[in-house]
Amino acid sequence: MKNTKIEIVGRGNVASHLFKAISHFADAQIVNPHSLESLRRDADIILIAVTDSAIVEVTRRIDNLCSNPSTIIAHTSGTTPLSAIDGSRHHTGVFYPLQTFSKQVELDYRQIPFFIEGDSEETAEKLSALASCISTRVQIADSTQRKSLHVAAVLVCNFVNHLWALSDQYLQANNLDFDMVRPLIAETFQKMMHHNPKDIQTGPASRRDYVTISSHLESLSSFPKIKEIYSLLSESIIQTCSKNIKI
Amino acid sequence: MKNTKIEIVGRGNVASHLFKAISHFADAQIVNPHSLESLRRDADIILIAVTDSAIVEVTRRIDNLCSNPSTIIAHTSGTTPLSAIDGSRHHTGVFYPLQTFSKQVELDYRQIPFFIEGDSEETAEKLSALASCISTRVQIADSTQRKSLHVAAVLVCNFVNHLWALSDQYLQANNLDFDMVRPLIAETFQKMMHHNPKDIQTGPASRRDYVTISSHLESLSSFPKIKEIYSLLSESIIQTCSKNIKI
Repeated sequence: MKNTKIEIVGRGNVASHLFKAISHFADAQIVNPHSLESLRRDADIILIAVTDSAIVEVTRRIDNLCSNPSTIIAHTSGTTPLSAIDGSRHHTGVFYPLQTFSKQVELDYRQIPFFIEGDSEETAEKLSALASCISTRVQIADSTQRKSLHVAAVLVCNFVNHLWALSDQYLQANNLDFDMVRPLIAETFQKMMHHNPKDIQTGPASRRDYVTISSHLESLSSFPKIKEIYSLLSESIIQTCSKNIKI
Repeated sequence: MKNTKIEIVGRGNVASHLFKAISHFADAQIVNPHSLESLRRDADIILIAVTDSAIVEVTRRIDNLCSNPSTIIAHTSGTTPLSAIDGSRHHTGVFYPLQTFSKQVELDYRQIPFFIEGDSEETAEKLSALASCISTRVQIADSTQRKSLHVAAVLVCNFVNHLWALSDQYLQANNLDFDMVRPLIAETFQKMMHHNPKDIQTGPASRRDYVTISSHLESLSSFPKIKEIYSLLSESIIQTCSKNIKI
């Protein structure tokens, strides 16, 4: 792919990580969305890695600048459907890496699942070929599946991190240190990597220990939001575990 | 400690892991709570690793069987206060390992934080000495601190695992595989091990992307409990992140 021209439009973490991964094997260039004039008019693929709400506008501006009919424009968003950009005069597709990107954190790109969609089989094949140079986990997914994956990602990543943040806040308020629970988190993570999470559920709610649950809720009286979350998640665990028993 | 006699009362995972860890360096014996007659009357320390609601009754029965005044009885529960057993005619204490124990999973015991409480400084010292033979992370904590740690453990371990389980259920219902999000979870975990969780919060709620949030809630209409959890946690993230901005 040494001669394949890939433009990556964006200024954030996704854009810089994609550029880093792609520049090893293709002729890649990162382009600031505010300076689209620097786009190469003969680009093979233009990846749009901007905030969701700007995708349509950036595509429209690219359409005004470039007219190479063989160029593929692909966005990198989980939630935006392909239909948002398929009015473009270019080929269109989606190039979605299911990962959380941070500036300073090194990643093993070969492990990142990529989900590809194209306006035609040919477009999907070209985008898959590009993704396969980065990762070993490339799959075709339509806009509905990709949205489901994004919802799941919010649950397993954003919400999980928030529970850790709330716990940090609660421990600090009690003069305790979040480091004390890190080994527990590490163990919980290791178990999940090797088991189905519903098979390894532990804790007061999973054993319907209502005495402990009430006692914990009482301890949380100065933390109304955490208390609400504690109630709702305990209720949900009790519901799930009783379903398991029925099966 | 080769000649120190340690009895571990219990039949569950905590009991079997404690026995495994302690038998390397002390004269340990595991005792079924239903056959307390086999307790050695000259035991130095009796660890009670039974379900919370049975701790008081097991202590009472040990009191009836043994009368060595120098024996220490310690329970291993996060939520049960020391006061629950300090009416015993023995010395009493708490020996609480903050970890999630499973039968088949090997653990690095040296990393497990142990929280110790004693009815006297001498009792606390003896229990700390025992814990220090297992782990490098031994601390004194009173019943209130221990309860806070247990609440935090439920948040960071039980609830996190439940979010993973819900995501598994949701992905399956959409013909997708939980394996697709495991690399994302691994990355989220690695970030948390090296950063303060509130500093690495990402996702639609943290950037107040209400369009994506609404669109996700719509996708969750057939999953009312997950939808409720999605709403509440997004609300909590928005609240937390706006607090950060004010600071």
